[in-house]
Amino acid sequence: MEYKLYIAGDFVKTDQKLTVSNPYDDSIVGETFLAGSKELDLAIDKAESVKNEMRDLPSYKKFEILLSIADRIADKKSELALVLAKEAGKPLKYALGEIDRAIQVFKVAAEESKRLPKEYFSIDWTPAGHGKEGLVKYFPVGVIAGIAPFNFPLNLAVHKIAPAIASGNPIILKPARSTPLSVLELAKIIDETELPKGAFSVLTMDREAGNQLVTDNRINMLSFTGSPSVGWKMKTNAGRKKVALELGGNAGVIVSDDSDIEFVVKKCIVGGFAYSGQVCIHVQRIYVHETVFDNFIYQFTEGTKQLKFGAPDELSTDVSVMIDEQNAIRVEEWVKDAEKDGAKILFGGNRKGTYFEPTIITNTKREMKVCALEVFGPVVIIEKFSDFDEAVKSVNDSEYGLQAGVFTNKINEMNQAYNELEVGGVIVNDVPTFRVDHMPYGGVKNSGFGREGIKYSIFEMLEPKLLVKNADY
Amino acid sequence: MEYKLYIAGDFVKTDQKLTVSNPYDDSIVGETFLAGSKELDLAIDKAESVKNEMRDLPSYKKFEILLSIADRIADKKSELALVLAKEAGKPLKYALGEIDRAIQVFKVAAEESKRLPKEYFSIDWTPAGHGKEGLVKYFPVGVIAGIAPFNFPLNLAVHKIAPAIASGNPIILKPARSTPLSVLELAKIIDETELPKGAFSVLTMDREAGNQLVTDNRINMLSFTGSPSVGWKMKTNAGRKKVALELGGNAGVIVSDDSDIEFVVKKCIVGGFAYSGQVCIHVQRIYVHETVFDNFIYQFTEGTKQLKFGAPDELSTDVSVMIDEQNAIRVEEWVKDAEKDGAKILFGGNRKGTYFEPTIITNTKREMKVCALEVFGPVVIIEKFSDFDEAVKSVNDSEYGLQAGVFTNKINEMNQAYNELEVGGVIVNDVPTFRVDHMPYGGVKNSGFGREGIKYSIFEMLEPKLLVKNADY
Amino acid sequence: MEYKLYIAGDFVKTDQKLTVSNPYDDSIVGETFLAGSKELDLAIDKAESVKNEMRDLPSYKKFEILLSIADRIADKKSELALVLAKEAGKPLKYALGEIDRAIQVFKVAAEESKRLPKEYFSIDWTPAGHGKEGLVKYFPVGVIAGIAPFNFPLNLAVHKIAPAIASGNPIILKPARSTPLSVLELAKIIDETELPKGAFSVLTMDREAGNQLVTDNRINMLSFTGSPSVGWKMKTNAGRKKVALELGGNAGVIVSDDSDIEFVVKKCIVGGFAYSGQVCIHVQRIYVHETVFDNFIYQFTEGTKQLKFGAPDELSTDVSVMIDEQNAIRVEEWVKDAEKDGAKILFGGNRKGTYFEPTIITNTKREMKVCALEVFGPVVIIEKFSDFDEAVKSVNDSEYGLQAGVFTNKINEMNQAYNELEVGGVIVNDVPTFRVDHMPYGGVKNSGFGREGIKYSIFEMLEPKLLVKNADY
Amino acid sequence: MEYKLYIAGDFVKTDQKLTVSNPYDDSIVGETFLAGSKELDLAIDKAESVKNEMRDLPSYKKFEILLSIADRIADKKSELALVLAKEAGKPLKYALGEIDRAIQVFKVAAEESKRLPKEYFSIDWTPAGHGKEGLVKYFPVGVIAGIAPFNFPLNLAVHKIAPAIASGNPIILKPARSTPLSVLELAKIIDETELPKGAFSVLTMDREAGNQLVTDNRINMLSFTGSPSVGWKMKTNAGRKKVALELGGNAGVIVSDDSDIEFVVKKCIVGGFAYSGQVCIHVQRIYVHETVFDNFIYQFTEGTKQLKFGAPDELSTDVSVMIDEQNAIRVEEWVKDAEKDGAKILFGGNRKGTYFEPTIITNTKREMKVCALEVFGPVVIIEKFSDFDEAVKSVNDSEYGLQAGVFTNKINEMNQAYNELEVGGVIVNDVPTFRVDHMPYGGVKNSGFGREGIKYSIFEMLEPKLLVKNADY
Repeated sequence: MEYKLYIAGDFVKTDQKLTVSNPYDDSIVGETFLAGSKELDLAIDKAESVKNEMRDLPSYKKFEILLSIADRIADKKSELALVLAKEAGKPLKYALGEIDRAIQVFKVAAEESKRLPKEYFSIDWTPAGHGKEGLVKYFPVGVIAGIAPFNFPLNLAVHKIAPAIASGNPIILKPARSTPLSVLELAKIIDETELPKGAFSVLTMDREAGNQLVTDNRINMLSFTGSPSVGWKMKTNAGRKKVALELGGNAGVIVSDDSDIEFVVKKCIVGGFAYSGQVCIHVQRIYVHETVFDNFIYQFTEGTKQLKFGAPDELSTDVSVMIDEQNAIRVEEWVKDAEKDGAKILFGGNRKGTYFEPTIITNTKREMKVCALEVFGPVVIIEKFSDFDEAVKSVNDSEYGLQAGVFTNKINEMNQAYNELEVGGVIVNDVPTFRVDHMPYGGVKNSGFGREGIKYSIFEMLEPKLLVKNADY
Repeated sequence: MEYKLYIAGDFVKTDQKLTVSNPYDDSIVGETFLAGSKELDLAIDKAESVKNEMRDLPSYKKFEILLSIADRIADKKSELALVLAKEAGKPLKYALGEIDRAIQVFKVAAEESKRLPKEYFSIDWTPAGHGKEGLVKYFPVGVIAGIAPFNFPLNLAVHKIAPAIASGNPIILKPARSTPLSVLELAKIIDETELPKGAFSVLTMDREAGNQLVTDNRINMLSFTGSPSVGWKMKTNAGRKKVALELGGNAGVIVSDDSDIEFVVKKCIVGGFAYSGQVCIHVQRIYVHETVFDNFIYQFTEGTKQLKFGAPDELSTDVSVMIDEQNAIRVEEWVKDAEKDGAKILFGGNRKGTYFEPTIITNTKREMKVCALEVFGPVVIIEKFSDFDEAVKSVNDSEYGLQAGVFTNKINEMNQAYNELEVGGVIVNDVPTFRVDHMPYGGVKNSGFGREGIKYSIFEMLEPKLLVKNADY
Repeated sequence: MEYKLYIAGDFVKTDQKLTVSNPYDDSIVGETFLAGSKELDLAIDKAESVKNEMRDLPSYKKFEILLSIADRIADKKSELALVLAKEAGKPLKYALGEIDRAIQVFKVAAEESKRLPKEYFSIDWTPAGHGKEGLVKYFPVGVIAGIAPFNFPLNLAVHKIAPAIASGNPIILKPARSTPLSVLELAKIIDETELPKGAFSVLTMDREAGNQLVTDNRINMLSFTGSPSVGWKMKTNAGRKKVALELGGNAGVIVSDDSDIEFVVKKCIVGGFAYSGQVCIHVQRIYVHETVFDNFIYQFTEGTKQLKFGAPDELSTDVSVMIDEQNAIRVEEWVKDAEKDGAKILFGGNRKGTYFEPTIITNTKREMKVCALEVFGPVVIIEKFSDFDEAVKSVNDSEYGLQAGVFTNKINEMNQAYNELEVGGVIVNDVPTFRVDHMPYGGVKNSGFGREGIKYSIFEMLEPKLLVKNADY
Repeated sequence: MEYKLYIAGDFVKTDQKLTVSNPYDDSIVGETFLAGSKELDLAIDKAESVKNEMRDLPSYKKFEILLSIADRIADKKSELALVLAKEAGKPLKYALGEIDRAIQVFKVAAEESKRLPKEYFSIDWTPAGHGKEGLVKYFPVGVIAGIAPFNFPLNLAVHKIAPAIASGNPIILKPARSTPLSVLELAKIIDETELPKGAFSVLTMDREAGNQLVTDNRINMLSFTGSPSVGWKMKTNAGRKKVALELGGNAGVIVSDDSDIEFVVKKCIVGGFAYSGQVCIHVQRIYVHETVFDNFIYQFTEGTKQLKFGAPDELSTDVSVMIDEQNAIRVEEWVKDAEKDGAKILFGGNRKGTYFEPTIITNTKREMKVCALEVFGPVVIIEKFSDFDEAVKSVNDSEYGLQAGVFTNKINEMNQAYNELEVGGVIVNDVPTFRVDHMPYGGVKNSGFGREGIKYSIFEMLEPKLLVKNADY
């Protein structure tokens, strides 16, 4: 099946073809195209030309557009989920969950579009302001470039598209080359709404166009989700643009002595192995209090054994392949390196093509790649701690800081974790993988710059403007 | 010493004299006057006549006035504390603390006067609102009558005066007959500032004037702190006025098994016996987990024994007399009744004139007056519980609901206490007696109506007004 | 057709029948029942029994319930509009508009149910608060009694029901005796949702039950829309309950010299005569700048002549009958009195049964009932002014203060109107009849107490509770 | 007099001397030093070492420190003003005003330090969040580098220092080489407070240290006020740092036909010539409606003639010299170029050393440097317009967008100006030069990135951290 690119209301082909295949069996999922500078230029021109129209859309109109997108996605849910499952190699049950979340993002964006921030305040704190009052409204920043990753090809794109519409900004979305199809399906849906043409384009890009996206002065903001190295370089090259970066992590979990181990293990297995760990907030490092460590290891290993491997498009599949063989090989090497260096593999560790087994490791050292870097694969390390301070330090001993999980019923441990963990979000009694779409989401240190989560993305896509006016004139 | 009443900038005498004496030794602290309807009428007239001027005071002017009051109180701190200690029979160290809090209330009110609530929002959620936006500013309600109790004669009056000024309302304050002097001292201070004359009056009143205060249509709001029976009747008779009621309580404390008993006991002794328990949020009922009960009882009794009785105007005094003999006798009777009915007095229980000993009781039943009613005296009951649910139910088993304290390090107990305790405020790891002046404060059930705490009082003293205006006209 | 009352999930009959007839032709619209104390007691008991369940409903559940009500109303829109048109004698186009607004109220309530107010703040402004932080969540007040008027029998009931559900409170609704049917239709709709049974009852009541509703201590809040005399008496008898009163008005409009008269006249004719002026914010008094007065009078009269009289259930009808003959006679008398006293009737003035003609009067005096009281009929007075100050004073010269309209393009006139008009809402460049459902709505002076408008009603249906907790424990 | 640099509590010399002279008469104001990398390294190390201590300062402590700084500045006001007047060549009356504003900034920062943003919200918008709630607190970003310009050497430094302290961040301040002395005086003041040593350093820097300040990874945020070219380059080189840029402008004013010309002219003369136009929001371009143009020109010219030239340290001086001869020569050339190209000089245009006369120009073209670039000198251009649209377009016809002024009494012109002017702030009925210190301040387009104004600066110096926690666990 052929998917055309979407530029400002037109579905177009280019002379650069792109084939998208299923990493599970290498079957072709669809054919699409790469845009070059010419197509990108057109998309930017069109986006600029609807800036004022987008800025002036009344609340009820933005609300209607966003809700109608949500409704249409819901109508095509199973179709979309299948495309997504195949292009990303994502087990169907998780693909279906992703569609549900994309629907929720559009619905929440619809609600938030009516609640853009506005401040009204007294100016007369000194005689200089006598008789005056102030209003701050937040205006759209302008043309936004959204760059989405392969791992949640629909929902992480939607986390840029929906807030852009809600805040009155045109957006050009660049999906990952390996997974552009679900978002091109979304383009068909959006095209049927009353969103002004030009306010939304989807372009898979060649390298030149990709670079231009970062440097072009007509673009006012970059919103990027992807790898740290690419992201930080983008910030340097962005010129006057605003930049939002959602990068990776090697999320840690602390399991205190009073935890319900059965509950915790169940959460951690999903957090560790869902979509083969190819999740920014995948559970990578688990620190367990010594009094419950053995029990934890036992239950965790037993639970992991139950995971069912299979094709992504089957509902019963728990784990499937990785996005490509290159990544599977990388993970295999990191695990082998760790083993060579003294780590003990409690379960898994083997690769077969694009499939890498759910893998549990202990006895690691902090410098091992499986600890220090973002493994982005189905690998979990589990270590023991004896006091809470030590566990906090272990989680912080990382270049990354996205989210962390803490299982405890102690107020003081909750407080300490929140005050001291160097992350964007501390999840108490759940895994760091926890995310609902309206919460603020983003990392510190190497993990990112700025926050997403509809209301928060919207805020970053706006520019305050002050009105000082007479109140008693 | 003679204290004149303060009406709209004038210090006046009336033909009804009022003598204020020290409950410790019956010595005369000062002489003042009772206002009748004539004086009250004048105060109301003057208040009405400055309504618009008060409404239109710029922020910087209100800020300056409020800060200058705070500064002047600080300058006269020891003098004011002495008057307060003597008229109220309040140990000097607590009287000094009360002055400090009154200063803080004026300072915070100064800051909040610049931050009155204002909302700006989109109206165009449906086509009917196309092109329009909304502003809500909060305007002063009008003339306020403040009625203050004897137990914190300065600070609880200030909790009405300072927010009234901050919100741009004139206020007429009626102090308790037993303790009018410290607030008449405050009138001298305020008179020296640039507050428009008429915006503040202080009148001790005869019964007729007191009734008129409640029913007079020119008064737009009643802010009352005092007994439940008087307060609720006032609400009935208030006509169209807004009403805020800060009434009594019989505050409960829960001590969980993981608490640091030494720390808890120290807090509870102050909460139970400071100013002889004549405090709305005095610690009256303590529920202690059975595993730490005996230790708690022992330490609490030992600690109570250390309290030093003395004259209110001596710095070393921990406990002194009650406000009058009538109240001391009442408390004595309640304690005797409880004992007759099976309760066990662990310490104290005796009266000598206006002095009633710090008293600890256990083995009580819920219907006993020392449990069920507001004892407003130096009496604490301590009972044992075996599970947290039971403790929560015991605290809730009361007509009152002001504040409660919970000592625990367990997240689930904190959550349960907060969700289920029927009170205005749950204080975790401190006594219910905890109050800082900017926090919202007030009760549910029989304990009150509305909230104080500067920002919250200000909000209750304001009336929203909407402006719907064109945004793109 | 027979409509049963709705008590906590059961549709019930009583032994007191009530016939509802169409004021246009006296035809029977339906039969229903009056509840007595027995039925009310049951409704209150059931409401109390689901208080905790309602308090603990998760956001997503309240959201789903409220949205599903909105969707079901939309499905039955024409059916509901017809019942409403007939029972109220309301022209169908306005009845349809009212259904749309009721849908909107449930939708907005759904959104707001996820956004209940919550405050988190630092407590450590003085050393007394060291190491502590504060949280204020707002909990449901308890059982609410909603009392709705005849003029918007559905939407003004919904303005109580939807916020009650959104805030987690059970509600018992008492509709007007003349117009109970549309809200009994709504009961059928709500009964099909997952709202806990007991959280909603609809009872038309006999006098005894009506009185009990006000005085019963198990009810925690009264939310009343109706006449001032009944409302204010209710406040007096309400005991400890919270009270919200939406009462009447005699809304004024100011037309400045720079106004577009054609635009203004069009707005004012709808504001003055829609639903025969039986609207709290009906345009009753218009003050027009002398330079445009004659033109205004001419166009207004011509426009009024075009209004088409007819049956309420016909789409082409602009004006129809009043709610009953008694009211039509009252309006007739007021108009005759005014004429006798020197006023000049420019158009209309005649009655035929329940129909009273759209009527335009000038040369009035402030004491005439058509000026000073709430006419609640199709009568508009139009007077001339020469300066803006005078116009503001004229609008303020009233016992009422609900909303006012000001047509002007001058910043200083807008500011003056907003600062000085004694009303709940100032509508610039539109009539005072302007209302969208999410804006704060309510009056000052004799016109009311508190505010409605979903978010604002929700706030009034909540009680703050403070949690003071350790942050660094 | 010798001024030592201030590093983390120590006053130090370096081996690079720097002489600061008065641009009016070239007299030496003081001697100080340039820091190199060694000193900067030390300052950064010390700053890092107090990060946690700063983060954990309780509110009352930050409040006390900030207020005590404000009080000490007030005590030394005349002394500080004199140093400032001399080093900057700023007329004493404006220097005194600057000290007052610096005091105000510290006072407001004190208040805001107790009100750092905190959000508490429900997480359970979908079943995935069942039983959970969210808290967002904002934590300090880390070490801040503040870079201040010469034109407000004290207050624009204070706009970085005070918010840094209020938000709990250590800050290293680099003043301009020409005007470091007043902020070194401030260092003496701050050194006497309880601010942890290391939290504040002041270093004039050599080029190498200046570059390191931008690139050093231990610094977490750059807050720069200065020229666009330097600022934008800094953003590129900043790595992972947050960046706030306050750059220049060529502010426009629109004078509508209904304006009070006498009032407007008075405002515009101050806005145009105060401190010789060396102000980011100096009135550079005035667009006057044709009906009032001639009158405006006449009054403006007459008013300008009255300005008194003199030494900066004399109170009667209205205008004095520019910061150095190089700048005076630059302005002279731009004016000559404009004249050559057809512009007409209505007044002024001559230079004498560092002094450039207040200069009024008309008949300009948009490309002339005096229009298109930031003149940063005492030059004002005045042009005529016939309709408001045209005036808005003229103001927008610029690379810059800081603030704009609009004199009008028309609601629609106010709305259009606010919606369409591409600036950070629109000032109605005052000049763009209007600034009070607590309002949000900053530009769009070439004029800046981010906002200052205490609360807004504080927000930019904070990083959100989410806590997801059980609410019903």
